Amino acid sequence: MRYFIELAYDGTRFHGWQLQPNAISVQEELNGALAKALRNTDINVVGCGRTDTGVHSEYYVAHFDVENPVDESLEWLTFKLNSILPSDICVMSVQQVDDSLHARFSATMRTYHYYVASRKNPFTRFKSYHPPFQLDFDKMNEAASLLLSEEDFTSFARLHSNAKTNICYLQQAEWLVDSNGEYYFRISANRFLRNMVRAIVGTLFDVGRGKLDMDGFKAIIAEKDRQAASSSAAPQGLSLVDVVYPEGRGFARSIPPIL
Amino acid sequence: MRYFIELAYDGTRFHGWQLQPNAISVQEELNGALAKALRNTDINVVGCGRTDTGVHSEYYVAHFDVENPVDESLEWLTFKLNSILPSDICVMSVQQVDDSLHARFSATMRTYHYYVASRKNPFTRFKSYHPPFQLDFDKMNEAASLLLSEEDFTSFARLHSNAKTNICYLQQAEWLVDSNGEYYFRISANRFLRNMVRAIVGTLFDVGRGKLDMDGFKAIIAEKDRQAASSSAAPQGLSLVDVVYPEGRGFARSIPPIL
Repeated sequence: MRYFIELAYDGTRFHGWQLQPNAISVQEELNGALAKALRNTDINVVGCGRTDTGVHSEYYVAHFDVENPVDESLEWLTFKLNSILPSDICVMSVQQVDDSLHARFSATMRTYHYYVASRKNPFTRFKSYHPPFQLDFDKMNEAASLLLSEEDFTSFARLHSNAKTNICYLQQAEWLVDSNGEYYFRISANRFLRNMVRAIVGTLFDVGRGKLDMDGFKAIIAEKDRQAASSSAAPQGLSLVDVVYPEGRGFARSIPPIL
Repeated sequence: MRYFIELAYDGTRFHGWQLQPNAISVQEELNGALAKALRNTDINVVGCGRTDTGVHSEYYVAHFDVENPVDESLEWLTFKLNSILPSDICVMSVQQVDDSLHARFSATMRTYHYYVASRKNPFTRFKSYHPPFQLDFDKMNEAASLLLSEEDFTSFARLHSNAKTNICYLQQAEWLVDSNGEYYFRISANRFLRNMVRAIVGTLFDVGRGKLDMDGFKAIIAEKDRQAASSSAAPQGLSLVDVVYPEGRGFARSIPPIL
């Protein structure tokens, strides 16, 4: 039996999604909560992707397998998990799905937001990045649009990664304005390389502050060398906000995606 | 010379606005930052009102007096204060005002929001209250509207307070829905008694969960006894969001009020 968990977490306190020795992770917390709720210590959740230390997820999907169906109702399990989990992780739903649906490999699209704060803001300090320089968002959007005609993102891939390919199909890469007048970068693709969004945002910051012109940005993409691009943007501005799965295999989103 | 400071703070870490021995306060942080920035340890800021431990301010006004005009530009002072102050306090502006304008006594209206989270939410956990019961907001609005015809708020005043009068003129007391579909209570008045908003919200929660009917709510208002009302709502849901001053005495808001 396979179950999908829809969840969200504030990544501030975690060393990312992925289980690791000597560091607190969201995966570990979720495994522990499932072990308590279902009295089963063999469960190991599989996430839709890694998130780095300090990166948030407003929407995240993970799956777990058990031999027998969960005894209690899935509403009960959702409630129980939330009562066990710390306040920085919440579960929105638990649903039984087709065994062939995989949280990571079945996902067809992922979307990230990178939030920028135009001023020091006590209320968004863990969720956005306040750059100590002025940014020209028109220029950053001009550069971002160049990414859409690109498929090889080696320039923004972590060095010595064990990814087989650096090919990603982007659907959107655009700076938008939220209801408070603050800018955020929205980027959607079938897959992302490790550290890719923060490397892109960091390089776009160099465009926005005038350190890099459009030709320079094009050259970085063409170079296919991570060392050509700028340093990564700070993790606290980044949130995974959407993951899409093919319909018809038992999974129904319980909350609408962020538009 | 008198100066007005517009600021905001996340109250989570503070024992309220007011300076007190052996506990960290916003007033103490601001006094310390002004002492460093202006090399003057005699400055003592006067706030527009007290906020309790854990209560936030999205908009707060304080004043301070100095013998001679500030040497540097007020933009410099704003920047300097923000660089000295911790990340949970930010200064929006410093402005010279008429000496007769007083941060507390000149304020003609104050507005608070009380934010409710309909589900466990990692991102608003320090800024809203997630009640462990269902609420009927229509009934709560029916009860809230009764407050508007009232002037004596003794039923919602802290016992043994040293306030001379418990008379307040309310302009608004209403549950509204924000852009995320979450409810918040907006209450405006010329003045508020200590603990008044949280006592009102706590009592409205009892209406919303069916523990108190409209007649019971009316009786509590009429009784003029704090012990008749319900317990106070948790502090983290409460934020001061607006303070209004009479025009024409040198003070110009640097950010628009939240509507």
